[in-house]
Amino acid sequence: MGRWEPDAAGRLRTAALELFEEVGFDQATVAEISERAGVTSRTFFRYFADKQEVLFAGSENLGIEMAAALTAAPADASARRALDAALDQAASLLTSRADFARRRHAVVSSNPALRERETMKMDRLTETLAAALRDRGVADPLAIMTAHVGVAAFRVAFDAWAQDPAIDLRTAMAANLAALSPATG
Amino acid sequence: MGRWEPDAAGRLRTAALELFEEVGFDQATVAEISERAGVTSRTFFRYFADKQEVLFAGSENLGIEMAAALTAAPADASARRALDAALDQAASLLTSRADFARRRHAVVSSNPALRERETMKMDRLTETLAAALRDRGVADPLAIMTAHVGVAAFRVAFDAWAQDPAIDLRTAMAANLAALSPATG
Repeated sequence: MGRWEPDAAGRLRTAALELFEEVGFDQATVAEISERAGVTSRTFFRYFADKQEVLFAGSENLGIEMAAALTAAPADASARRALDAALDQAASLLTSRADFARRRHAVVSSNPALRERETMKMDRLTETLAAALRDRGVADPLAIMTAHVGVAAFRVAFDAWAQDPAIDLRTAMAANLAALSPATG
Repeated sequence: MGRWEPDAAGRLRTAALELFEEVGFDQATVAEISERAGVTSRTFFRYFADKQEVLFAGSENLGIEMAAALTAAPADASARRALDAALDQAASLLTSRADFARRRHAVVSSNPALRERETMKMDRLTETLAAALRDRGVADPLAIMTAHVGVAAFRVAFDAWAQDPAIDLRTAMAANLAALSPATG
């Protein structure tokens, strides 16, 4: 365990996920995670405040990238078209790290406290997307309702995709939105 | 403070709300709430497990009543029409206790832990409505997406209504759903 630890954060993430899968999130300790990653607990705490952070650190990136895509959509694009750009971005982000995202999803789903934190994350994501829509000049209630619908389409598709590799994430999001057409008309 | 305490629960609820408004949720103690209600702390704990429960006890009734309205909608009603029946029920329930609902909303909004619990309540409400829709034979993703949209319409309208007595809750919910028509088409 030298001072030079190439990708210690990445190894800690992998080690933590493996351990959460093997013994459950509640049972895994920071000491065990660190040992498996070949670093000290001191190194763990240089990267993560606690066990939960291994699963949630950087999770605000999803909202930041979705909001950026929404902002970058053509100025004359409707709220729905701008939302589509954000969902495209979310799909490519998650698809690019599918293995970690799916395994993380299984761990989070199996633990009530983690599920609660994930729900709060979705709530903040809704606020982030609504704010980005308002910045485009979309008025409420369209801005907040579009954000709610977008996050719902994302979340329902993500749950299905995480459990079934045959599902295409972007197609599933589109299907969720399409299902609503008769429901909201 | 005799053993016979007419509407002790109601008096505790009123006393708690007043105290939360005056000194803040975190500062109010069970002893103070009980004293103001003219009962002992022992009596408080006969009705509520803790301070939070004064604000959240019985909150599952909203989901139960909304689901019942949804279930009672005509068998040939669309998912959207069944949802409308549930929103009608939510509006009449909240309008009938508008003063408490509005003051409770202000207390909950001002406290992060209470806001988080309220968000989790909305998440469970979504699941309850989706399950009731599935029981009507509505397939996913329409069932879960309709539930998400319904809860969003409810929540956004409720936030507005709680802060502005001039707003009609049912009309605001309908406006939220109507705003989505171009967004989801």
